[in-house]
Amino acid sequence: MSKPYVIGIDMGGTNTAFGIVDARGTVIASSSIKTAKHSDINDYIDELFVEANRLMVANDAVDKIHGIGVGAPNANYFTGIIEEGVNLPWPTPIPLADLLSAKFGIPVAITNDANAAAIGEMTYGAARGLKDFIMITLGTGVGSGIVINGQMVYGHDGFAGELGHVIVKRNNGRICGCGRTGCLEAYCSATGVARTAREFLEIRSDDSLLRNLEVDTITSKDVYDAAVQGDKLAKEIFEYTGKILGEALADFVAFSSPEAFILFGGLTKSGDLIMKPVKNALDKNILPIYRGKVKLLLSELKESDAAVLGASALGWEVKNI
Amino acid sequence: MSKPYVIGIDMGGTNTAFGIVDARGTVIASSSIKTAKHSDINDYIDELFVEANRLMVANDAVDKIHGIGVGAPNANYFTGIIEEGVNLPWPTPIPLADLLSAKFGIPVAITNDANAAAIGEMTYGAARGLKDFIMITLGTGVGSGIVINGQMVYGHDGFAGELGHVIVKRNNGRICGCGRTGCLEAYCSATGVARTAREFLEIRSDDSLLRNLEVDTITSKDVYDAAVQGDKLAKEIFEYTGKILGEALADFVAFSSPEAFILFGGLTKSGDLIMKPVKNALDKNILPIYRGKVKLLLSELKESDAAVLGASALGWEVKNI
Repeated sequence: MSKPYVIGIDMGGTNTAFGIVDARGTVIASSSIKTAKHSDINDYIDELFVEANRLMVANDAVDKIHGIGVGAPNANYFTGIIEEGVNLPWPTPIPLADLLSAKFGIPVAITNDANAAAIGEMTYGAARGLKDFIMITLGTGVGSGIVINGQMVYGHDGFAGELGHVIVKRNNGRICGCGRTGCLEAYCSATGVARTAREFLEIRSDDSLLRNLEVDTITSKDVYDAAVQGDKLAKEIFEYTGKILGEALADFVAFSSPEAFILFGGLTKSGDLIMKPVKNALDKNILPIYRGKVKLLLSELKESDAAVLGASALGWEVKNI
Repeated sequence: MSKPYVIGIDMGGTNTAFGIVDARGTVIASSSIKTAKHSDINDYIDELFVEANRLMVANDAVDKIHGIGVGAPNANYFTGIIEEGVNLPWPTPIPLADLLSAKFGIPVAITNDANAAAIGEMTYGAARGLKDFIMITLGTGVGSGIVINGQMVYGHDGFAGELGHVIVKRNNGRICGCGRTGCLEAYCSATGVARTAREFLEIRSDDSLLRNLEVDTITSKDVYDAAVQGDKLAKEIFEYTGKILGEALADFVAFSSPEAFILFGGLTKSGDLIMKPVKNALDKNILPIYRGKVKLLLSELKESDAAVLGASALGWEVKNI
């Protein structure tokens, strides 16, 4: 008999959230542990198992888990390994899939957060029924997950879909966390919006509610709050951000001609403030052959559940032997 | 018994080349007709059939054709239709696949030239054994064909892979044939090289062999000839062109993480003059996670045969009922 549940694990540098999910995308039960608490990866795996097992027992889900899906930074779907360059308390590479499947006795698949989000939208959310779409996550950074012909694009090495690191300012661009300059992420993430605010406030001299704040502490939320109150400079920050994102999306269309973009993350809560300039720039910059064909959609997953749901969706794809 | 041959048809605005090809990529016989001669598409189809049939009879290939593949401008793989915006003597849309299969009694698949080139390289050329690669054709324009996980990327509408129209100069870019400005094609095609030559000659004052030519008649071949003779300005034109292309390729890697780029077309004949700056810019601009993983290859198909071979490769993919 096929097993009715999957476990989704969203592994971040600080916290690890996890939950038991059914085929409709209902989170039956969820919990979290502190990632950073354990200096030994094995202690972390042990605590994760104890806590997840407690959930399984309490919800009559023992022996009913089809697979475990994990969203984690730099997680390679092909190898099951977390590669270097991540903010985790353990040395890399980390053979995460093997560690977890050995402990749980359940098959495990891993990928990065944005890919997990894309699979989540395809399984339970806004991308149900879509075979060609691009997920863009606008959080602290800018992530992406690309689906072509119904399949997640992993690339030859498992690391495809780093659209946050496409160069949008070729000259004199902002320094990015990746070590290069001018990346999309340096402009269109929450951090990017805050940086734009600082730049605008320094370069310009017009009034703004944002001038009442300590400039180094300004967040994208502050910019949103000011914009909602009608602050002109704050609104122009969103226009600037949305224009850059829309121009980038127009280029992405020339690659895989997706039916839709699905946007997710904190910045999308700014609604029309950001979405209108994104749509305008996309429409204005798109190659004529694609005009009017590409939808701009918002994630349909509840933000508090989305990461666990996305990871869990990958759990349906593992091979159960 | 499976049929041993395919027919490849390369349909251009002026000429249509076609040939009978075997499974190893040998062109058994080939010929061509004038596309522009016929004001009625049916007359064109008739002549194409008569000529192709003559080849089939002469080479004992009647009833031995598995399928017909066509490379044609704006040809949609999904619908079999040539869409608007092409330089052909007939009104669009043109139901080319239906017209040909009705006439020949053989299944027909069509796609654009660059996609056909990619399938050709995968079947007979430099991409044999590669599952993830991007074909870039550098001719009068810049075309592309993207293969992910062994499958041609057509996108939701059949028109994916227009990487020649990714924007490489966001501000003050050159006008492109597509009606927008700053496209890769406006810089890295043969025409783009000639435009760069004109720009350099106008803006700069240093000596160059190119100054002996009528400026409006300069071609990329002239630039090549001058560069081979050691002309500094001509060499810098290739460096400028290669840098822009390499920067664009680095962005493409962030999309699908290909194992290789396959370059094809007139410009690649300039060898190291263009390939060195492409490689330098690719290496310098690539996201660290992909560094050292992506090959830069040249097409292995003979240029005179490549278009027909590429189209023919699509002929193996048609469903024979």
